[in-house]
Amino acid sequence: MKKKIRPTALGVDFGGTSVKVGLVDAAGRVLRKTQVATSAVASRSAWLDFVGSCLEQFASACGSPAGIGVGVPGFVDFERGFIYNLTNVPGWKSVPLAGLLRKRFGMPAFVDNDVNAMSRGECAFGAGRRHRHALFVTLGTGVGGALMLNGKIYRGAYSMAGEIGHLSINRFGPRNAEGRGGLETYVGNTAIVALARRALRKHRAPVLHGLAGGDASKITPKLLAAAAARGEQSALEIFENIADCLATAFASAVYLIQPEIIVVGGGVAQCGGILFAPLRRKLKERLHPSFAARVRIVPALLGADAGLIGCATLALPGNCPA
Amino acid sequence: MKKKIRPTALGVDFGGTSVKVGLVDAAGRVLRKTQVATSAVASRSAWLDFVGSCLEQFASACGSPAGIGVGVPGFVDFERGFIYNLTNVPGWKSVPLAGLLRKRFGMPAFVDNDVNAMSRGECAFGAGRRHRHALFVTLGTGVGGALMLNGKIYRGAYSMAGEIGHLSINRFGPRNAEGRGGLETYVGNTAIVALARRALRKHRAPVLHGLAGGDASKITPKLLAAAAARGEQSALEIFENIADCLATAFASAVYLIQPEIIVVGGGVAQCGGILFAPLRRKLKERLHPSFAARVRIVPALLGADAGLIGCATLALPGNCPA
Repeated sequence: MKKKIRPTALGVDFGGTSVKVGLVDAAGRVLRKTQVATSAVASRSAWLDFVGSCLEQFASACGSPAGIGVGVPGFVDFERGFIYNLTNVPGWKSVPLAGLLRKRFGMPAFVDNDVNAMSRGECAFGAGRRHRHALFVTLGTGVGGALMLNGKIYRGAYSMAGEIGHLSINRFGPRNAEGRGGLETYVGNTAIVALARRALRKHRAPVLHGLAGGDASKITPKLLAAAAARGEQSALEIFENIADCLATAFASAVYLIQPEIIVVGGGVAQCGGILFAPLRRKLKERLHPSFAARVRIVPALLGADAGLIGCATLALPGNCPA
Repeated sequence: MKKKIRPTALGVDFGGTSVKVGLVDAAGRVLRKTQVATSAVASRSAWLDFVGSCLEQFASACGSPAGIGVGVPGFVDFERGFIYNLTNVPGWKSVPLAGLLRKRFGMPAFVDNDVNAMSRGECAFGAGRRHRHALFVTLGTGVGGALMLNGKIYRGAYSMAGEIGHLSINRFGPRNAEGRGGLETYVGNTAIVALARRALRKHRAPVLHGLAGGDASKITPKLLAAAAARGEQSALEIFENIADCLATAFASAVYLIQPEIIVVGGGVAQCGGILFAPLRRKLKERLHPSFAARVRIVPALLGADAGLIGCATLALPGNCPA
């Protein structure tokens, strides 16, 4: 009797900070993974070379995957596997990425918005199971969102829906290409780190100072969360502020699409109760009781690998509502 | 040969200010209509008596309608025809209205959120035809919304989706039961009239003063629009402000659900270019060009009768995506 080989897929989570590549099996388990700084593979050829080297390495250990799924931080036409534009990665405009991957590696390839990809993984293996209406959010360099409505990923009229990072939470907020006062300008990693550095400069963050070894350039949201967990007041205030900004946008999304559940993933979501406790409280304050009673907010179940697993899920047939 | 009788339905547009009742035929034409101040029929029995008298009067002229469709300003379970709560009409909490109507008048009855009802009419006979993804908004005492996604009315997890009037456009805005800085608190009729009265008090609205016969209690959004049309600066500024508030919320909705079209109905939408010119300009300013190029904003085609026709459409079988 031949040994049955479980199908796997290569997931490529293309973030603004790092590119993570992993081999994922049909049960959503990560068999192998590696990552590189986005800046180190910023050109298309370097990026494709990196994916190629991962593929070779993983395939030699675990056999060839069924296909490649890529999640990218920006506007994508999923049907065509085409990148319009990546918000936080320069030089990736109008790229027919799925086609390039198919041609080079000779296997099925799919490209989706990173949060759509993450939400596929959460639908198949994580917090989205047994739900029909969900909002997925990832917190990172950018703030992305995806919608599952009536049990399927909802893409909108031109495949660009779900961009919760650009919901305005202040009509008089700072202007950028996406409008004014968009959520991402307040809770993206850059904004969080800037607030933390300000606290440091004002000598309000001795714990954070210690954790960063006195080097402000080493501050990350994760380090800030560690300081908050140790009771640093300025760090707790920053998380309170992040939670309020998120709650404002989430309340708007709840009024509009009324999901049963909001699934929050990405780096900042790893902060656990430091983020989720004030977030739940503030979301409740910002919703009419009839709505507040009917929505839950939970961390992405797949944790730090949610993005990676989701990307692979794109190429694991039968696992994900399109 | 028997004369074929075209089916009709009774539409009841139950607003915070007035209750409009009309007989609508299968082509979406209003054959008969009448209205009464909501305050005059505020109790359930008075309301049912009024609907009964309209039904009798219309039926004697045009024959009995196929059913009754009611649109109400608040939270409704469409499946059960059950009113949870009406935001701007006291005393209508937990009312099984469809059941009451069926029992009293012995014909099919349907109850929906007023904007869902309006959007049914626009889908069947108006601006929503030939579209698959649309946001419908009504401007009046309250600001309501409805969504058509993938060609069907989208209701959310608990039949309460589409509440664009509660989208926050300012995280630090005024508090109410629905949260903070909700759109409705800035552009509902009450807010508009308050701004107009302030201009009047400051002697900045001579045209409006003349139109209202010097009586501030007579000011309506319609009168303000008339003053704006005659070039009154303060009135134009108020419409500029309304447009900016609407654009902020609409941009958020576009980022989240990416509709092809935004259909705006209700009293204030009758103001035409006075509202739509600044609204289109400001929506464009608040969207990334990739989104701005892919959404249109238009007035409800069914005009002042959009609500009425929509309500009747609820009871005109075959005309509306559920």
